Amino acid sequence: MSKTFEKLQPLLDKSMAFQTARSLFEWDDQTTAPFEAAEYTAKVVGIISDEYMKSMINDDVRKLLKKLQDDKEQEELTDTEKAIVKELSKAYEQLESIPPEEYRAFSELTSVSSRKWSKAKKDNCFEDFAPYLKKIIDFKKKFAGYRVKGDKKPYEVLLGDYEECFMIKELDAFFDLVKAEIVPLLKEVAKKAETIDKSYNYLNYDIEKQKEFSKYLAGYVGFDFNRGVIAESAHPFTLQLHNHDVRITNRFIENNLESAMFSIIHESGHAMYEMNIDDAITQTLVGGGASMGMHESQSRFFENIIGRSNEFWAPIYDKLVNTYPENLSNITLDHFIKGINKAAPNLIRTEADELSYCIHVIIRYEIEKMIFNDEVTVDELPKVWNQKYQEYMGITPSTDTEGILQDTHWSWGEFGYFPSYAIGTAVASQIFACMQEKMPIDDYLKVGNLTPIREYLRDNIHKFGAVRNTNEILKQVCGEEFKADYYVKYLKEKYKKLYDL
Amino acid sequence: MSKTFEKLQPLLDKSMAFQTARSLFEWDDQTTAPFEAAEYTAKVVGIISDEYMKSMINDDVRKLLKKLQDDKEQEELTDTEKAIVKELSKAYEQLESIPPEEYRAFSELTSVSSRKWSKAKKDNCFEDFAPYLKKIIDFKKKFAGYRVKGDKKPYEVLLGDYEECFMIKELDAFFDLVKAEIVPLLKEVAKKAETIDKSYNYLNYDIEKQKEFSKYLAGYVGFDFNRGVIAESAHPFTLQLHNHDVRITNRFIENNLESAMFSIIHESGHAMYEMNIDDAITQTLVGGGASMGMHESQSRFFENIIGRSNEFWAPIYDKLVNTYPENLSNITLDHFIKGINKAAPNLIRTEADELSYCIHVIIRYEIEKMIFNDEVTVDELPKVWNQKYQEYMGITPSTDTEGILQDTHWSWGEFGYFPSYAIGTAVASQIFACMQEKMPIDDYLKVGNLTPIREYLRDNIHKFGAVRNTNEILKQVCGEEFKADYYVKYLKEKYKKLYDL
Repeated sequence: MSKTFEKLQPLLDKSMAFQTARSLFEWDDQTTAPFEAAEYTAKVVGIISDEYMKSMINDDVRKLLKKLQDDKEQEELTDTEKAIVKELSKAYEQLESIPPEEYRAFSELTSVSSRKWSKAKKDNCFEDFAPYLKKIIDFKKKFAGYRVKGDKKPYEVLLGDYEECFMIKELDAFFDLVKAEIVPLLKEVAKKAETIDKSYNYLNYDIEKQKEFSKYLAGYVGFDFNRGVIAESAHPFTLQLHNHDVRITNRFIENNLESAMFSIIHESGHAMYEMNIDDAITQTLVGGGASMGMHESQSRFFENIIGRSNEFWAPIYDKLVNTYPENLSNITLDHFIKGINKAAPNLIRTEADELSYCIHVIIRYEIEKMIFNDEVTVDELPKVWNQKYQEYMGITPSTDTEGILQDTHWSWGEFGYFPSYAIGTAVASQIFACMQEKMPIDDYLKVGNLTPIREYLRDNIHKFGAVRNTNEILKQVCGEEFKADYYVKYLKEKYKKLYDL
Repeated sequence: MSKTFEKLQPLLDKSMAFQTARSLFEWDDQTTAPFEAAEYTAKVVGIISDEYMKSMINDDVRKLLKKLQDDKEQEELTDTEKAIVKELSKAYEQLESIPPEEYRAFSELTSVSSRKWSKAKKDNCFEDFAPYLKKIIDFKKKFAGYRVKGDKKPYEVLLGDYEECFMIKELDAFFDLVKAEIVPLLKEVAKKAETIDKSYNYLNYDIEKQKEFSKYLAGYVGFDFNRGVIAESAHPFTLQLHNHDVRITNRFIENNLESAMFSIIHESGHAMYEMNIDDAITQTLVGGGASMGMHESQSRFFENIIGRSNEFWAPIYDKLVNTYPENLSNITLDHFIKGINKAAPNLIRTEADELSYCIHVIIRYEIEKMIFNDEVTVDELPKVWNQKYQEYMGITPSTDTEGILQDTHWSWGEFGYFPSYAIGTAVASQIFACMQEKMPIDDYLKVGNLTPIREYLRDNIHKFGAVRNTNEILKQVCGEEFKADYYVKYLKEKYKKLYDL
């Protein structure tokens, strides 16, 4: 180990400890803490967050980082150490460029604005949220301006925070292809989908049985209960303290069978990624998944590509029917598979089917690009939003609550985040295509043996954490960088077969 | 606010934040964390504990503390601030006297020795634990030696860490009275108790129903679910993050009705103390209960004095019978009250009845005194232990597992702790006697109205946190300091009436 890096290690450990504590408070807040705790606990979390910032950004770390960025020092570093230095450089670039008082003002703004958004959504009143959104956008433009370099656009600075391999050029090409191929396909599918009777999904499903079956599904896809726990929260999420403590939540809706089942498979996909990260890099700056997009690729690989396939359900569908014979005994596996893949234009991203999902993302991407190119004002956003839904989906939201106000992300200042959902989905298809060349996935699924699939992902993707970026991983696994064609091909083949088109 | 104290405040807040984080990790470890998490999480907790120590003991705090200890500065302080300075002084006295390398060696020892104790208890092999116990005792003697002042004995230094008002003189007087009065009473009661058929308690009690009834009992005695949560753990305990977030755990045994019921009342007693502490002092050094003994007084007040009375159960016993009609429909309230107060000599402290409990504590106290007076070697301890059980209880443990190895406390180096259990029990009786002069407790209980009882405790004890010590509280509430007579009188009256003696 390089002497300089050796000096850096305990400083990074300290900051990891504060970050882990913050994560635990976050988990606790979402799953356990009593109603009245928030105000007093906020004081604690505020102090720990300050300490976290101080432990990351300070003269000692700065000096060591400067030294480690030097070419000669770099030669002494292992690949992992290099990746850690790179991550740390990114954090410095991101945090140091912003004057602390502006950062604080922004943090205060978002802690208010997220509540304002929540109320505005409830009241269906975009005007109440608009002034806050304006301020957030002004801050984000300013912050991006501080960091913009070379011929990069401000919006690309934000995109890069979530997925460094995908700038406007790559995303435009990706989304143009999707628009050209998937928008017409969705319309074709929608017509046929009307004939699928999915009323069985909205019958009464006992919550206790749902919990039990969800837990079974998590274990079935490979969630390791020795390294993880499942709890309940208002919205399902995954959170890790380290690779031996990865937690997921689920929520249960009595009149919706699919909701909890596919949420648990989705979160298990995220969780297995974190559980499989190598012991040697957990609790370091590269000890999490490679990027938002890569993470989403793993959750969607399990949720959609594997989890909505006939082969996945073939060995376990009987168990599901036997859990709810009163509702499912007349529903054949074939009918069920059509049901879980029923697709149609729709307004709400989080409830979207696999086929239309990407279109929701494209609409947000196009609007964010317009915002950061100064091509639209905040007040015009609802109109633009509705026009785009009409153009791509053929439907228009009747309220802003089911339109521009539906997502929380912007209220936190998270611009540039949405594309990673689409990237993840597309990356999953590309990985799936490469894996099919290497192993008989369908045959494994049919006999309920997911181990080879999991092990392949572990050994080729998961264990590296964030040492490699998305394109480096894809190059290693598939022999080529990201290519959107796989995604389009996957969707077309799947849906044409399912719907006899 | 004094200028010096104003400077101290943010430093204390920081250390409070780290302490709260440690508490949350502790809670999480006991209730939630997955099996394999411990090793990696320990690294995080280790770093946060170090930061906690550094935030407490450092030159900045030391200088401000020195200044605040000055008479003139003291004049400017409020009572709360004075109490905080006093607590901080205690912490400095306790921690600064021990050389850091010795403290670290001791911490490492106890983290091993508690596991060694656990294994030795399982294997019924005191010899395996003895070498560790010797080292722990040597450390504790050395540490007490550093801190001993005036005519205090080393053991009193340790006693003072848990309960400053009770030194050897006070404890000897207290325990001599108990031995003289309660040891013979227990023998008398035991003979009669044999006729009480308590087999109903060991029938099958559905765990889900136990959970529901426990939750009901917690709410019934006054646990505020807006400020607290209940979870499960191997051993019931109470833990608070602050006065708006107080957590208790319970455990459920299928063949024991009483276990979970009285545990939840006990822990609710602890929890209400913490919940009722004033907002103005929560998250400060005096923001918890006054002492171990005072805390135990509140848990035992609810568990034993209130919770095992006929009047408490009169309005709710039907509910219990209706929950388990198959087991309890033939058990009258009178029979049930005799059952929950069945007393007899016994070997295990944590399973002891109200009457014999104190004798368990006395045995431990006498042995600890011998240890720190160099009157016994570690190897002789099992023999001494068994002799004392024979002398006071009339029975001898057949194994060390149910003898000297039963408690975990010594494996953590917690000498001087046990007496606080007995002090708590006796303090509870004294408070009960004073309250009876002021309000018709029995009448309130009979109609299921616990509010005036709770409010009295809140306004006269709880809200002050650790601003006042045990004797100051008693003087305020009862007009006199601790007096063991109340306890002896309470037990004698209760058991003579129950058993027609």
